[in-house]
Amino acid sequence: MLRTSSLILLAVVAYSIAAISPSALAKDALPSWKEGPAKKAITDFVKKVTTSGELEFVKPSERIAVFDNDGTLWAEQPIYFQLAFAIDRVKALAPKHPEWKNKQPFKAVLDNDMDTLVKSGKRGLMELIMATHTGMSSKDFARVVEIWINGARNPKTGKLYRDMIYQPMLELLSYLRANGFKTYIVSGGGMDFMRPWAESVYGIPPDQIVGSSIKVKYEVKDGTPVITRLPELNFIDDKEGKPVGIHYHIGTRPIAAFGNSDGDFQMLEWVTAGEGPRLGVLIHHDDAEREFAYDRESHIGKLNRGLDEAEKRGWVVVSMKSDWACIFPYQCKAAASEK
Amino acid sequence: MLRTSSLILLAVVAYSIAAISPSALAKDALPSWKEGPAKKAITDFVKKVTTSGELEFVKPSERIAVFDNDGTLWAEQPIYFQLAFAIDRVKALAPKHPEWKNKQPFKAVLDNDMDTLVKSGKRGLMELIMATHTGMSSKDFARVVEIWINGARNPKTGKLYRDMIYQPMLELLSYLRANGFKTYIVSGGGMDFMRPWAESVYGIPPDQIVGSSIKVKYEVKDGTPVITRLPELNFIDDKEGKPVGIHYHIGTRPIAAFGNSDGDFQMLEWVTAGEGPRLGVLIHHDDAEREFAYDRESHIGKLNRGLDEAEKRGWVVVSMKSDWACIFPYQCKAAASEK
Repeated sequence: MLRTSSLILLAVVAYSIAAISPSALAKDALPSWKEGPAKKAITDFVKKVTTSGELEFVKPSERIAVFDNDGTLWAEQPIYFQLAFAIDRVKALAPKHPEWKNKQPFKAVLDNDMDTLVKSGKRGLMELIMATHTGMSSKDFARVVEIWINGARNPKTGKLYRDMIYQPMLELLSYLRANGFKTYIVSGGGMDFMRPWAESVYGIPPDQIVGSSIKVKYEVKDGTPVITRLPELNFIDDKEGKPVGIHYHIGTRPIAAFGNSDGDFQMLEWVTAGEGPRLGVLIHHDDAEREFAYDRESHIGKLNRGLDEAEKRGWVVVSMKSDWACIFPYQCKAAASEK
Repeated sequence: MLRTSSLILLAVVAYSIAAISPSALAKDALPSWKEGPAKKAITDFVKKVTTSGELEFVKPSERIAVFDNDGTLWAEQPIYFQLAFAIDRVKALAPKHPEWKNKQPFKAVLDNDMDTLVKSGKRGLMELIMATHTGMSSKDFARVVEIWINGARNPKTGKLYRDMIYQPMLELLSYLRANGFKTYIVSGGGMDFMRPWAESVYGIPPDQIVGSSIKVKYEVKDGTPVITRLPELNFIDDKEGKPVGIHYHIGTRPIAAFGNSDGDFQMLEWVTAGEGPRLGVLIHHDDAEREFAYDRESHIGKLNRGLDEAEKRGWVVVSMKSDWACIFPYQCKAAASEK
């Protein structure tokens, strides 16, 4: 009897220890991060704010971390993945829109004429978004996104877009959550474009996704209540818009912010100007071999002011080339199996 | 040695059992709710969606419950508490605004002339809100609200506004959270008016508060980043606005909705029209003795269509008089100490 009950008790102890926090006992919660100043700055920060009794301890309800998406959690080359989605949608919808054959920017899309498309600028882009992202219910839009994300592939890598996420950032998200952080996306991309897949890909639920949005209205159609997507912008969650989006959605100033471009500058500025311990991190795309190399002159994900001011502002610049052992999960798996 | 280690192990076992879920072991998680159809409908629903293996089981990530605030979580008589706040602010700010002595609706406020104030209508109300809720940083506004909520008293009861919350609803919030629900406020009231105190009063954090909002902008003032409140409406979270606010902030259709007025009609309609198990609840203010009695003809918290359609829509109507053993926490404590 004593033996059996002792075994049960031991099992309970083992379970209790395992339940405390998987990462607390793990040797290295960030295995794809090479040892160095970037990794150390992140882990030092997390230890500091989670060590009870320390002057810089932060209570769990205030452990909020915000992440840009394009170029920070997943890639953004050769074009923003959401733009690739819009282009694919234009092609899919073209048979119902014969007028698009002679109307820009749709003609450029159908002709695969990227130069003309780029020249159509923000106005052209907005027309594409409105034509492909609105005029249906929120439920139907979510389904269209879901089908696309599970099948569409990047022309440069031939990989699914959803697989072009950064393994070191996935580890970082898990590490922060295991340490009591709430992790949010704060992206210039469309809120409703990210929601259908961000939970399965990043473990981030729909209510923790802040992004640009179009107007919607509630209506009862033939007795069925629906949320209808209207062809009108609601909010641009970029640059000065990011601290505003954080205000509306989160309502507490985060203590850590992760970005990769000057579109994230104000978010990092806002987050790191708060009192107490703060962490601002910029991911620098300097690895042409394993990912893409671009910064000051790039049309996508331009990082100029951020590079100039990171040091004086105490922001950590992560070199994808030097600080990350591998980048995409499929690269990390391949590297692991070679060992 | 064996004895000591056994004691430690037993302590761990006791801790483990206690940690499962405090409410799972409690006899009655809703002691202020009288036994009856309303309480039964709520507890049956919760059991159904949380019983693993049941056809109607709902996974925790989809257990989302939304609550109106005014008249559902706290009282709203003789005037919306946020309007009382605006009136108190006008009086406090009056010395800096000599022009208000001769300008409506401010004159009416300073003269305690409620008739004229009411006659100024929505436009007058909006002027009061803009004059008292904007033109400062979000941080300063939060501080002003916090000071007010901890000191201002209701003229009818003499109690702090923050104490005029409904004990049965506090129990319900805890009960739902103990059963894996995320609880949100979805209120016509100001998001930034509720955020400074909703966590300490209801246990609802700032990012789970959906409400009406004014526009804000991000700016760097003398080197310090601030969120400045602008005198412009951003969003009205009432009637058809409630499902829209839910879309923007939550992004998942809730499975349970609690309201008390026709301003909550569309929210209940949207929530209960979804597939699978759904719960719609209306709190009916029918207790003139312990709280206030009002419904179809009331200027505040009018409940007319809701009463007409509740039965056919399968919504639960809670009688504050018959279904609640006590209403405000101070009444509940007094009742408990009399026993």
